[in-house]
Amino acid sequence: MYPIHNRTIYKYKHGKMVEQIDVVADEHPITIRINGKEFMTIVCTPEHIEEMVIGFLASEGVIPKYESIKEISLQEDLGVIHISTDQYFPYYEKMLNKRYIASCCGMSRQGFVFAHDALTAKTMTEINVKLNPDQCFSLMKQLDESAKMFQETGGVHNAALCTPEQIILSRTDIGRHNALDKIYGHCLKHSIAVSDKIIVFSGRISSEILLKVSKIGCEIVLSKSAPTELALKLAEQLGITTVGFIRGNSFNVYTHPHRLTT
Amino acid sequence: MYPIHNRTIYKYKHGKMVEQIDVVADEHPITIRINGKEFMTIVCTPEHIEEMVIGFLASEGVIPKYESIKEISLQEDLGVIHISTDQYFPYYEKMLNKRYIASCCGMSRQGFVFAHDALTAKTMTEINVKLNPDQCFSLMKQLDESAKMFQETGGVHNAALCTPEQIILSRTDIGRHNALDKIYGHCLKHSIAVSDKIIVFSGRISSEILLKVSKIGCEIVLSKSAPTELALKLAEQLGITTVGFIRGNSFNVYTHPHRLTT
Repeated sequence: MYPIHNRTIYKYKHGKMVEQIDVVADEHPITIRINGKEFMTIVCTPEHIEEMVIGFLASEGVIPKYESIKEISLQEDLGVIHISTDQYFPYYEKMLNKRYIASCCGMSRQGFVFAHDALTAKTMTEINVKLNPDQCFSLMKQLDESAKMFQETGGVHNAALCTPEQIILSRTDIGRHNALDKIYGHCLKHSIAVSDKIIVFSGRISSEILLKVSKIGCEIVLSKSAPTELALKLAEQLGITTVGFIRGNSFNVYTHPHRLTT
Repeated sequence: MYPIHNRTIYKYKHGKMVEQIDVVADEHPITIRINGKEFMTIVCTPEHIEEMVIGFLASEGVIPKYESIKEISLQEDLGVIHISTDQYFPYYEKMLNKRYIASCCGMSRQGFVFAHDALTAKTMTEINVKLNPDQCFSLMKQLDESAKMFQETGGVHNAALCTPEQIILSRTDIGRHNALDKIYGHCLKHSIAVSDKIIVFSGRISSEILLKVSKIGCEIVLSKSAPTELALKLAEQLGITTVGFIRGNSFNVYTHPHRLTT
């Protein structure tokens, strides 16, 4: 499986239609089987699949921790990944569609929508990392520069785990959540501490992206794009600093601005 | 429920952090109840909710046709929509996670991923609509101009149903699929013929977007952004003309170019 594909297209330019070869991002279905039983199929960019699946299972609360996975093996040609575990949450499928009104933890109806989010989201009460404006601009520039596949194909999202100074890990996927799951899975597998790190993301900060950041355990998320109101309500409640619209020499801080220094 | 929200943010510009009011796109959870039983929760931009739910249920194959819905009522304050129907597909939840290898209809493994897609996608064998380059550029320009909320908040996707000359319906949502479901629901409710219409979309054409276009029943999809390889494989098989990267005075035709005239 290769994440990029060459194909013949017809390009219209300066009034003419010309046949040429173009580069297109790939999507592949990956089916997760847990203890021999089909669990779920994820459509993704086919690289770092094992880490994506680890990150997905942990952030969604299907497994309690990385160590719960006894064995993991990928059959790339079939698009199947086999997980063997003695500890997992078998009711995940049933909970997927269930609305959860989490009055117990002070959330409004606009807060947690799904039960598994309330189980796995972490609230950031400390300040383990701070950023100044130059670092914000620099990290976003580094993400742009690392995003080679995006520039070629225009079809994928990029996410990076960073210190205030630099990117230490970047992942690409056609699925917004998959890119973050790939990062989380890598951190779990290699025991990388995340509380003093920052997530930089190429796309819009929706409620689902914000929840993923919280599940990974980072305190700051940076984006070139805009957040939604629901994402910001969650960020307020979960203690996450949200920085958006990082473009040119300006950006917006939406929540918990105390982690930004000038 | 209002789709736009004012909030106080901290804007960094020209070396200074200034407090100001900014406009942010809203997301709300809407829970669908079918015949009194909770079915699914969708996070969406809270406008045209009834049409979105009709489009979702029909395009995903939960109901066989619009007329299967006997009653539909929205409780906006609770975020709940009640559907009464005597004909629906009760196994939808179980099929959601199931991989389907549709060898029966000549699809490769990279073709249909989910069973409900194979049930509801339509193959376009005819040519009911054609476009010339000027019409492509004009429709994309019209979409940009209609996308007021996008320009203000930067956080939503826009989709439009068009004749070759003009937009006849445009919808906005933080969820890519929701914008298309809103269009489909409107067409079903108002008996609008779609086979001679075009879908224009602001975002990337993933396999899921391509399948939605097919389920709606349009033959051409235009986008400012890039398609993925899986989307193009599906477009080839389903007979859909895919036009991407409509920017400046150029665009790319990826599949079934015979609907483009010069």
